[in-house]
Amino acid sequence: MQDHHVNVGILGLGTVGTGVARILLTQQDLLRTRSALTFTLHTIVELNWDKERDLDLSGVECITDAQKMLENPEIDIIVETIGGYEPAFTFIATALRNRKHVVTANKALIATRGRELFQIAKENGVDLLFEASVGGGIPIIKGLREGLVANQIERVYGILNGTSNYILTRMHQEELEFGQALAEAQAKGFAEADPTLDVSGGDAAHKLTILASIAASGFVNYQDLYIEGIQNITKLDINFAKSFGYTIKLLAVMRRMENGLDLRVHPTLVPNNHLLAAVNNELNAVFVKGDFVGNTMFYGPGAGERPTASSIVSDIVDLSRDLLLKEGEQFSCRTLNPEQGIPVVPVEQIRNRFYLRFFTLDAPGILSKISGVLAQNGISISSMVQLETHGKDNYVPIVLLTHEASEQAMKQALDAIGKFDFIQENYLRIRLF
Amino acid sequence: MQDHHVNVGILGLGTVGTGVARILLTQQDLLRTRSALTFTLHTIVELNWDKERDLDLSGVECITDAQKMLENPEIDIIVETIGGYEPAFTFIATALRNRKHVVTANKALIATRGRELFQIAKENGVDLLFEASVGGGIPIIKGLREGLVANQIERVYGILNGTSNYILTRMHQEELEFGQALAEAQAKGFAEADPTLDVSGGDAAHKLTILASIAASGFVNYQDLYIEGIQNITKLDINFAKSFGYTIKLLAVMRRMENGLDLRVHPTLVPNNHLLAAVNNELNAVFVKGDFVGNTMFYGPGAGERPTASSIVSDIVDLSRDLLLKEGEQFSCRTLNPEQGIPVVPVEQIRNRFYLRFFTLDAPGILSKISGVLAQNGISISSMVQLETHGKDNYVPIVLLTHEASEQAMKQALDAIGKFDFIQENYLRIRLF
Repeated sequence: MQDHHVNVGILGLGTVGTGVARILLTQQDLLRTRSALTFTLHTIVELNWDKERDLDLSGVECITDAQKMLENPEIDIIVETIGGYEPAFTFIATALRNRKHVVTANKALIATRGRELFQIAKENGVDLLFEASVGGGIPIIKGLREGLVANQIERVYGILNGTSNYILTRMHQEELEFGQALAEAQAKGFAEADPTLDVSGGDAAHKLTILASIAASGFVNYQDLYIEGIQNITKLDINFAKSFGYTIKLLAVMRRMENGLDLRVHPTLVPNNHLLAAVNNELNAVFVKGDFVGNTMFYGPGAGERPTASSIVSDIVDLSRDLLLKEGEQFSCRTLNPEQGIPVVPVEQIRNRFYLRFFTLDAPGILSKISGVLAQNGISISSMVQLETHGKDNYVPIVLLTHEASEQAMKQALDAIGKFDFIQENYLRIRLF
Repeated sequence: MQDHHVNVGILGLGTVGTGVARILLTQQDLLRTRSALTFTLHTIVELNWDKERDLDLSGVECITDAQKMLENPEIDIIVETIGGYEPAFTFIATALRNRKHVVTANKALIATRGRELFQIAKENGVDLLFEASVGGGIPIIKGLREGLVANQIERVYGILNGTSNYILTRMHQEELEFGQALAEAQAKGFAEADPTLDVSGGDAAHKLTILASIAASGFVNYQDLYIEGIQNITKLDINFAKSFGYTIKLLAVMRRMENGLDLRVHPTLVPNNHLLAAVNNELNAVFVKGDFVGNTMFYGPGAGERPTASSIVSDIVDLSRDLLLKEGEQFSCRTLNPEQGIPVVPVEQIRNRFYLRFFTLDAPGILSKISGVLAQNGISISSMVQLETHGKDNYVPIVLLTHEASEQAMKQALDAIGKFDFIQENYLRIRLF
């Protein structure tokens, strides 16, 4: 056993880059004890060096020229933490072509342009790892890819976006409307100034694309996912859900079916006795069901400087093992296979139970018209609540829970019901777990 | 990248061995896709070949002579599933000396004689892996060792014994006494004919020894742990705990302290809003707190043929990567370091909150005598319940919750209180989370 040194370069010294630098600087002894490798923070590329960061960077090459680091033969592993599509894509591609291993937390990039990057990695005999791209500090990717390697993965489902989980938690606990809870999340730093990607389900869908690709040993096309956000959930819906014994969560769901994967991100009524109903605030949790292991669950912080850096450094340690390999060998179950496309089942073919909420005029015969349309489409009602008039415009809320029905039938029914002149436009359909 | 073949031998075809054989026989294509390696079940050693097992073993060498398999140069990896101390220890040691990698689920052996085995593995340049020894199918060892490698581990705590968790769950849900719940667990196959190791906390302590050794990058001595079982918990205690908002669980706890590890297994009152309170029946769950990641949790089936086999096969795939290493190289963070002993803090130095339950005569002045002894030992009471006489012998239950106090002070107080002639002998102390 020789004494190996590993030189690491970081692209971008924002929140996550700072966390990675902090671990490499403060945990060097710990990492050496555990891995028998010495990790050195060699170079950092950052455009803004004026910001105060509470890091002692003496001995570290601090530069602004990415190209210089990407071409430096002394650097073994590059960490990309700048985020976004460009120049991140070009930098990662260049690093891989220069035969450097790369670690990234960039879920949007991996989910939408990962196939190209994994192809470049493969051609150059290097690896691209991305543990921090899903579930922040939770080692879910390693757990799925290696810990459950012996299993056909039947299901992956969970809470993958901390911002929307924080908002929904506050709506449940404090009876806030969506806008109020969002404003609070922004004030506390749990939501971005532009929260669109988080509350629309897009971020959770990026992460689900990645988990599903690992689970299915291929590559899922992000465009194939069905995605719905939490923007239309109201305080009223939260309270109705509570009264039925449910908690509303933004779930990402993968199910293995005969003809492909069922892949969806949408608000979901989760029964209160399910562990996911108790995953609150900005935390993430993912259930994975394998054909041998059964149900497992991974839980923890889904974002933040220190948890994300924890995952990135675990990838660095993993990659450094490549230094011990024979010439021409590569670990294969680590990266996504860019050559194997995975079909996704169109959402219309999926069956679900539904929560439906309408505001209707308070007049005779309305409920029979709504239930008539549902019956025509083969949808049967399992419970119903109509409250007495309260509030503006003489409209009252009606809430229905249905038995299982096809998404196609529900779409047709809602199109028809939406045309009734006694129904307000802002009706809502939420799926049940 | 070459086409590698890996030959696996299994020692013992009981429940777990059968599960491993089943995966190797049925998931060969899946494993090849994911790892680019071809795994072959080469040999099984078993004394009783008469038993019906629902496995097609054509092409597999089925023998009774362990020595023959351990010496066969064609076999790369040996799986030990016979359990117990001997001949398991001798077989594993022999396999390692013959430079074969070994996988085991044998928690008792790893916890008590692991140091010797890891030393032999090190001297022979091979690895001994044991994912299935803790948490059954949950990839907790990989998560802790690799996923959280960048963290100083501050705490590990959770439910590590499925049998006692099943018994406690039934006591909570059905208001059973311990003996009734145990009998039910035995009838359903969740408890052995001799359940001592499970209900006494010994099995959970074996697992905690292993997790703590990984967390502290050294080796904990099993004899240093404080261990208490669930045999003395009564239906009455369960109901008192409920009334205070707690659920009683058998917890294994590791805390990193200045002068060593705090390591304990004992029944614990867990607040109902903690996720561990919702981990029911035979399931396991472990929280791990790292200095960078914060709190993470791993949950799933803690035992059973298929989950345990899932973990064993993940170890087989991990070990097969050693075939790709340069001559003389070894992965170091995989095995426990046999040369680094880890000190354990004596339980007397630990501080806890306590639940105390006494049966006393229903006479004046008793409560003041009990609380007087507690006060003399610096222990302050946070709440108290005394019920009216119900039941035999004129004795009534008194329950106290205390603020934090040292274990030493509590021991002294209980020794003194136990000597009062108005107290029945079967008083109980349970720690609070």
